[in-house]
Amino acid sequence: MLSLDKVFDAQTVLKNIVRETNVVRSYGIANQCELYLKPENLQITGSFKVRGSAYKIAMLSEDEKQKGVIACSAGNHAQGVALAAAKNGIKSLICLPDSAPISKVEATKGFGAEVCLVEGCYDDACKKALELKDKEGYTFVHPFDDENVIAGQGTIALEILNDLDNIDAIVVPVGGGGLISGVAYTAKHIRPGVKVYGVQVAGAPGMYNSIKSGKIEALDSVQTIADGIAVKQPGENTFELVKKYVDEIVLVSDDEVASAVLALIEKQKMIAEGAGAAAVAAVMFNKLPIEGKKVVCVVSGGNIDVTSLSRVIERGLLTSGRSSSLLIELIDKPGQLMVISHIIAQCGGNVTGVHYEKGNTESVNGCFLRIQMETRDYDHVNLIMQSLRKEGFKIV
Amino acid sequence: MLSLDKVFDAQTVLKNIVRETNVVRSYGIANQCELYLKPENLQITGSFKVRGSAYKIAMLSEDEKQKGVIACSAGNHAQGVALAAAKNGIKSLICLPDSAPISKVEATKGFGAEVCLVEGCYDDACKKALELKDKEGYTFVHPFDDENVIAGQGTIALEILNDLDNIDAIVVPVGGGGLISGVAYTAKHIRPGVKVYGVQVAGAPGMYNSIKSGKIEALDSVQTIADGIAVKQPGENTFELVKKYVDEIVLVSDDEVASAVLALIEKQKMIAEGAGAAAVAAVMFNKLPIEGKKVVCVVSGGNIDVTSLSRVIERGLLTSGRSSSLLIELIDKPGQLMVISHIIAQCGGNVTGVHYEKGNTESVNGCFLRIQMETRDYDHVNLIMQSLRKEGFKIV
Repeated sequence: MLSLDKVFDAQTVLKNIVRETNVVRSYGIANQCELYLKPENLQITGSFKVRGSAYKIAMLSEDEKQKGVIACSAGNHAQGVALAAAKNGIKSLICLPDSAPISKVEATKGFGAEVCLVEGCYDDACKKALELKDKEGYTFVHPFDDENVIAGQGTIALEILNDLDNIDAIVVPVGGGGLISGVAYTAKHIRPGVKVYGVQVAGAPGMYNSIKSGKIEALDSVQTIADGIAVKQPGENTFELVKKYVDEIVLVSDDEVASAVLALIEKQKMIAEGAGAAAVAAVMFNKLPIEGKKVVCVVSGGNIDVTSLSRVIERGLLTSGRSSSLLIELIDKPGQLMVISHIIAQCGGNVTGVHYEKGNTESVNGCFLRIQMETRDYDHVNLIMQSLRKEGFKIV
Repeated sequence: MLSLDKVFDAQTVLKNIVRETNVVRSYGIANQCELYLKPENLQITGSFKVRGSAYKIAMLSEDEKQKGVIACSAGNHAQGVALAAAKNGIKSLICLPDSAPISKVEATKGFGAEVCLVEGCYDDACKKALELKDKEGYTFVHPFDDENVIAGQGTIALEILNDLDNIDAIVVPVGGGGLISGVAYTAKHIRPGVKVYGVQVAGAPGMYNSIKSGKIEALDSVQTIADGIAVKQPGENTFELVKKYVDEIVLVSDDEVASAVLALIEKQKMIAEGAGAAAVAAVMFNKLPIEGKKVVCVVSGGNIDVTSLSRVIERGLLTSGRSSSLLIELIDKPGQLMVISHIIAQCGGNVTGVHYEKGNTESVNGCFLRIQMETRDYDHVNLIMQSLRKEGFKIV
């Protein structure tokens, strides 16, 4: 049974394993409220997940510890379990689909786990993990639907309430629901007046749908850049806890998440993964009744590979009109590029890419010119487009 | 006169203006030493600069405060002065060259400064600032060559020594020398055994050259991605302090800085600007005698615009062989791209861009194919190149 005592016990147990990440004030991301961030992206494995795994593992019997633990994950949970097991001096085995990126496999090994690559997809790896658990007597560490895991995540609320007085709301990203269950249970028991809001992405609304319909709903598939919360189905424990303790769950889009990742980079000098930025996205895009309130967003993790990061930054720049691309239909004659670059320069746009393409233009002598630019915002893009049209250029 | 008392006084004065940024342990960036980071990129204006300006401004007489302050900077110093003046309730005027990026102008205004755009370059803006100082009676806040500014920066050493016992060395980026002067003076007076090392970029080695030759040397020009330390000439005070208290100054290249920015993103989930990552670059690339030591790198700032950030990430990926580009000479016949993509896929490379170009090929029917790929490292790139060559493809 989850209890406040358990969460306090977890805090003691975790003292020498996890970092106490200090809440920081955030300026410039949202102006309608007094915004704070709980930066679990700066947590030791780059995500809050290690809290739950470490408490779960610490609570095992000597016999269970002897046999070791097993988990299935290609992400933050894997690294959390690996580190927690290493800190407890016990063996951990992580099952991964063989399609998992090399970087994730290496990171998991780096924290001291053995890795078992399973042919197929994530579900196949999970099946294999459960088989091995039965066969070898390992303890399976569930990523969220386990009361000790939930108690571990609840320590985040203890730290927030210790760092800040008089907060009005805590906003938490939601995948399977382990994090928000721990945070909501703990916060509501200590300060019942604090609102706890959950945020899911529109491409993976498992908990959102389940709460709406009043029973656990499973999604057929999930599709989002926030892979850390791309979960098909909430847990049984977490569903009940969210139903009881969470005030509201809202959805954000992938583009909103990308904008939030970008805002955290620019305003806070922090890297968040998509899931980690979801709560901030909900605040930035006014999804919650928090005007004038003192609000803490949990930034749950920062494990994003740099290639995805580049894409997310590019997407965020596009979404805010700071990077843009025009396709212009031209008659293929000398001097056209000169005229166009002149107009763009006069408007203060900065050309970053130029590309000629033949194609299905009106004139046989026509061609398409694609121009990439750095711009200030949408108004700036419109100004450039108007100036080009005024000179007779056709923007496709 | 600089004194330890002044630094302690600065610490008291700054208490409610700046953040005490906590030293964090860093894993995975350098294995030859026990590495810690002092994350001044998480400082309130995104850089340590606010410490020096805020102490300087707090120490002004009532009459001087009445008249206000002036500074010249397009970067971190501008924002530091602006915020420090606002917190003290006094006026600040920042002179900027009119070529300064809009984002920097807006950020400076955002912290409460008036901005004076001056036609010309940085030197013109500085001349204007000094004129206005004489004419209007403003106090000029020098970015580094001022004992109160230096005392303010020295508070960083107090915080480091308070956070960590028994450190062996502090590594500090060096531009004009204000930061390292404050840190070295303070650290050496409190714990004389602590080594203090400075790091400059090869494209802006003003202090490095001056210390080598024993007198202040001015550079004609500077060229580096680390714009925060792109300073032509050290100050008189800072030169003397560095000569007396700093153990060694070393140089790093722009590519090494880019790799350090990337490492801080991946391992630490932090954004550093080029200058901010210089100390980390020196440790990563073994420029310092710190094997087995307990070392703190000051990450001095995080104000890098996202476009530059994308470029730095791309550069860092190229430098480590994780992004690569091949130019292949082809006979222009059907099926070539298929064969090439097959080979790359078999080797585990991930194609991210393909581009055909006509050009000066051996055969009239020839063309060039440029392939961009994500790869693991240089060995991986070589493996792919070998496999392509084995099938008869000519890599240019």
